[in-house]
Amino acid sequence: MAVVVRNTERTPLTTVDAFAKIGVATIHEAQARTGLFASRLRPIYRPVRVAGNALTCEVAPGDNWSIHVAVEMAQPGDFLIVTPTSPCDDGYFGELLATSLVAHGVRGLVIDAGVRDIAELTAMGFPVWSKTVSAQGTVKETPGNVQTPIVCAGAYIRPGDVIVADDDGVVVVRREDAEVVRAACQGREENEHDKRVRLAAGELGLDMYDMRGKLKDRGLRYVEGTS
Amino acid sequence: MAVVVRNTERTPLTTVDAFAKIGVATIHEAQARTGLFASRLRPIYRPVRVAGNALTCEVAPGDNWSIHVAVEMAQPGDFLIVTPTSPCDDGYFGELLATSLVAHGVRGLVIDAGVRDIAELTAMGFPVWSKTVSAQGTVKETPGNVQTPIVCAGAYIRPGDVIVADDDGVVVVRREDAEVVRAACQGREENEHDKRVRLAAGELGLDMYDMRGKLKDRGLRYVEGTS
Amino acid sequence: MAVVVRNTERTPLTTVDAFAKIGVATIHEAQARTGLFASRLRPIYRPVRVAGNALTCEVAPGDNWSIHVAVEMAQPGDFLIVTPTSPCDDGYFGELLATSLVAHGVRGLVIDAGVRDIAELTAMGFPVWSKTVSAQGTVKETPGNVQTPIVCAGAYIRPGDVIVADDDGVVVVRREDAEVVRAACQGREENEHDKRVRLAAGELGLDMYDMRGKLKDRGLRYVEGTS
Amino acid sequence: MAVVVRNTERTPLTTVDAFAKIGVATIHEAQARTGLFASRLRPIYRPVRVAGNALTCEVAPGDNWSIHVAVEMAQPGDFLIVTPTSPCDDGYFGELLATSLVAHGVRGLVIDAGVRDIAELTAMGFPVWSKTVSAQGTVKETPGNVQTPIVCAGAYIRPGDVIVADDDGVVVVRREDAEVVRAACQGREENEHDKRVRLAAGELGLDMYDMRGKLKDRGLRYVEGTS
Amino acid sequence: MAVVVRNTERTPLTTVDAFAKIGVATIHEAQARTGLFASRLRPIYRPVRVAGNALTCEVAPGDNWSIHVAVEMAQPGDFLIVTPTSPCDDGYFGELLATSLVAHGVRGLVIDAGVRDIAELTAMGFPVWSKTVSAQGTVKETPGNVQTPIVCAGAYIRPGDVIVADDDGVVVVRREDAEVVRAACQGREENEHDKRVRLAAGELGLDMYDMRGKLKDRGLRYVEGTS
Amino acid sequence: MAVVVRNTERTPLTTVDAFAKIGVATIHEAQARTGLFASRLRPIYRPVRVAGNALTCEVAPGDNWSIHVAVEMAQPGDFLIVTPTSPCDDGYFGELLATSLVAHGVRGLVIDAGVRDIAELTAMGFPVWSKTVSAQGTVKETPGNVQTPIVCAGAYIRPGDVIVADDDGVVVVRREDAEVVRAACQGREENEHDKRVRLAAGELGLDMYDMRGKLKDRGLRYVEGTS
Repeated sequence: MAVVVRNTERTPLTTVDAFAKIGVATIHEAQARTGLFASRLRPIYRPVRVAGNALTCEVAPGDNWSIHVAVEMAQPGDFLIVTPTSPCDDGYFGELLATSLVAHGVRGLVIDAGVRDIAELTAMGFPVWSKTVSAQGTVKETPGNVQTPIVCAGAYIRPGDVIVADDDGVVVVRREDAEVVRAACQGREENEHDKRVRLAAGELGLDMYDMRGKLKDRGLRYVEGTS
Repeated sequence: MAVVVRNTERTPLTTVDAFAKIGVATIHEAQARTGLFASRLRPIYRPVRVAGNALTCEVAPGDNWSIHVAVEMAQPGDFLIVTPTSPCDDGYFGELLATSLVAHGVRGLVIDAGVRDIAELTAMGFPVWSKTVSAQGTVKETPGNVQTPIVCAGAYIRPGDVIVADDDGVVVVRREDAEVVRAACQGREENEHDKRVRLAAGELGLDMYDMRGKLKDRGLRYVEGTS
Repeated sequence: MAVVVRNTERTPLTTVDAFAKIGVATIHEAQARTGLFASRLRPIYRPVRVAGNALTCEVAPGDNWSIHVAVEMAQPGDFLIVTPTSPCDDGYFGELLATSLVAHGVRGLVIDAGVRDIAELTAMGFPVWSKTVSAQGTVKETPGNVQTPIVCAGAYIRPGDVIVADDDGVVVVRREDAEVVRAACQGREENEHDKRVRLAAGELGLDMYDMRGKLKDRGLRYVEGTS
Repeated sequence: MAVVVRNTERTPLTTVDAFAKIGVATIHEAQARTGLFASRLRPIYRPVRVAGNALTCEVAPGDNWSIHVAVEMAQPGDFLIVTPTSPCDDGYFGELLATSLVAHGVRGLVIDAGVRDIAELTAMGFPVWSKTVSAQGTVKETPGNVQTPIVCAGAYIRPGDVIVADDDGVVVVRREDAEVVRAACQGREENEHDKRVRLAAGELGLDMYDMRGKLKDRGLRYVEGTS
Repeated sequence: MAVVVRNTERTPLTTVDAFAKIGVATIHEAQARTGLFASRLRPIYRPVRVAGNALTCEVAPGDNWSIHVAVEMAQPGDFLIVTPTSPCDDGYFGELLATSLVAHGVRGLVIDAGVRDIAELTAMGFPVWSKTVSAQGTVKETPGNVQTPIVCAGAYIRPGDVIVADDDGVVVVRREDAEVVRAACQGREENEHDKRVRLAAGELGLDMYDMRGKLKDRGLRYVEGTS
Repeated sequence: MAVVVRNTERTPLTTVDAFAKIGVATIHEAQARTGLFASRLRPIYRPVRVAGNALTCEVAPGDNWSIHVAVEMAQPGDFLIVTPTSPCDDGYFGELLATSLVAHGVRGLVIDAGVRDIAELTAMGFPVWSKTVSAQGTVKETPGNVQTPIVCAGAYIRPGDVIVADDDGVVVVRREDAEVVRAACQGREENEHDKRVRLAAGELGLDMYDMRGKLKDRGLRYVEGTS
């Protein structure tokens, strides 16, 4: 009963590519701390940062068949997001599938399961964020949905939403919010540059952010050590 | 009541060494997806790949005494496989033991427990796959079995079975199957080379593996997006 | 009701700095296997080793306000130790706070929670040992205690105790024991050098440590293999 | 920036109540194995089964303020679903909040975090499914969204969707699918009754489900034991 | 390539049944602390104790087909032991399969995966030890081996070995050792009865086991409190 | 080098016993949310509540020897608190040790490790809070400290501090604070009784706690649903 949705909308690549210069933590802050994937997803190599359009894919436990189906739906600039329908640590993905994805312009993989051939994937420079690493292979018996909305590692993802991933983790930006969030990120980064200079010069955050009054209101007391 | 078994059989090193060129995932596939250790075992540095004859060793929780016993049983080309008799994360193994093992020709360590001195082990190039890293030391009060069959990280291992480990994990090949599995791996690798070329050229796995009919039989439907 | 304790005692930096040449495992052994933090704390990059005076800080779950308070208490040579009052994986700490700490002479961070901006922290060479990596930000609503005794990852820490951290983990040395422990470490290291030479030459630990009699007393038996 | 949505749609209670007679596993099967919450959510007492309309609530880590906000939105037949915006094990909920919810007709709580006062909640017969039990209290500093779509324990939930929970776990049925799924469940249960009678009489599933041919096609072989 | 082995040996039921009166901890002690399954396996209800002949079954992840195959191999007094070929938490087993197993004389289930319908299984008095509880169903696409040696939760099990399970966990006794272990258990239990009487009367274990000298030899010192 | 401290101070039993009527969550609140043990410690049966004087005991991994040493230090009203010096899940404690402790007036056990014989302990009514249940036995080779300050499950405990444990978890009250905390708890409980009556009558927490203004200040907005 699985479904593949063809011709879904995507976020324009000019917008997507602007996110590749912005850190995941900044994006997460700029959209009111929403959209983060669970921190169990970690990159197979570092440093790394990628942005792309979500190409969504559900897989049955221990069955990677629908990843093959997803390849045909890929467009340049896509970012494959794979979620198992029940928790599974198998190695769903390796070098051959990565070779195929690269040939179709896919920029990386986020998978809430296991991955294998990580030495080869690292050598190719194909970035993967996964729950674990496992040589355990999978079967091809049960197809899953491709390009439907999914929940992956606790985040709700629709095809064509912007996915950004770096050393810190993975975040989704809703397609319709992408331009607003990108602008907000830019503002935050300019602001952070200024703060960085002041903090590096020794200014205290307590003063720069004007926190002393509020801390006192919340009951913080200073006492002298007696040792 | 612990036992040390002397003069156990080993797999010939010519056979063992042929496995050092083959990935763990390939070997696992070539022997019907059996023999994999649990994926909680991870290498302390990457990239890495080692093959050797299993030198098996049981240890009591928090007690590394029998590793010292195992050193005397070592032969060149061995791969030390250590399993605690109950789960333990202590750092059973460090630089001094590695120095001793290297002196007796041992090629690496797989341990379903903790390891320490990982900076030194990395600098020496002594490969270790472990469950965790911990500076917590151990005592020498209770000897365990050496060179008997053991279960390590969910795999059943007999002395002299072939152990191969790389970035993806650890696998055992039964001594009596080693030649057959090695040949099967070679066939797989040749076959994979051909697939890699075709996938890199953009051919879809759906076509290359002739999956479309079977997917349709399993009920996969394609629909148009409406967004 | 949070408290900040000013002007706490510290261990002299001459003593602290001597620890930066000693491994965590050695220190742990030299003080009767006490003082180790739980092994869930891992460094964000390797190899690394740092020693400093504990600057202690409690944080509410998802709230990093008191880290800002702690910066003002910092002195050159301090090592910031942060523990949440209930378990939390959020990213409490990033590049801006690190910039501020560096400006005040702080050498590193140990945190039983999450950290973010790890690419930037790695590039700066600011060492962090954390439970996890997460882009999830925090609020500034509830101050916590600064420079009071805390429990962090199972270890009991008082301000000004010596903290040493490396690839293997994190250990605390009580301020009043620091000189004695440092001397004991030196003795161990000299002793280890001699052992390393003998083991590298092929001498067995069984002989070097004179273990054969005790092993026999504990019932270890040697048998011949029959395969 | 939190939002409370008033006057959201609900599923009619006649439909909701029909689900209270159906097991979670059956519902999950009847809707193509979708909608299950992660299995880390466990009931505080057993046996238990409840169905209700989702009353959704996001909470900040260590902060239960928006649960108080949610109470005012409650209608008889509601089922409170609480998700933290970052992972947290604190005890967000206890006897006083349960007393308040019962007074407003709420039938139970699902929370991907901790709960406390479980002896009192059990004595009151107020059912709770939670990730953990913890006496750790929370603050009231940061309000979260109430009655917006949320992801809880990996499931996507909208206000007024049907939630059913029993000893096996928790499942969501989309409001618009509720009648169809209910009917499908009834069909499954009648069918299961017949199967149960035949299996209890000793008939094999291999014959009842006509599996022998398909097993042979997939390569299953029968051999004689040799021991 | 899965295999079903017919007509495997079993341990005589007179021997098996004698184990049903003995606790798992006692059996584990009586056979030199071997044979324990990992403690992640917990019973779905308590108190409970069962002994039976191992009927072994491997399952693919998310696929319970071979459990149906195993039912046909069952004989009265069997205890079904199921292990997935890669880690999986799905609910492989429920009320219908239990009904079928009971009809063929099977006494219980040990599974290193999930189980569902636990309210019904509890009401039927069908005992199950599992890694988790999950309503997530499974498919029937890939058969696994039945009645071959397996590793389940870290223990090595052959068909017809004795399995005993109670509130404390699960243990295997090798078929060929069953009589000797049973006799050793009886000796331990008689000895424990005597100790229990003496300890209940206030005698110290330090004296009863004559530990004071050995403790002193190991460096235990008594000091007076100063508070 | 282990030490046993004799004749340590205890909290008067009249004070201790007053805590047995108060829930752990209330005590934790009454002392500024301090003193809670990690929530991984769970009772072996429910409902249950116990208060006693901490009798502290460190154990080596897989070694329960010092529990025998601790029995001799016991006084009526004590509560045994056991922590391993490195993480371990073995079953350190069973029915015989419980029989001995009961004979010396000990009221229960908290252990950050495993316990066994839980059917017998439940039948005896001897309460235990543990990290896990395991039949895995332990050795008697390495004594640990008894009646010294310890860290157990993240809490810092000194001999004679008050320990209270119930269905929600375990908390420590410092000996010198016991009277003040007990009085504060009584005040909280009276206050809670009044709130319970008002909430049961349907009064909203939003009004009872006067939260509406503060919520508005923090930016909470109410909007109408559009579905």
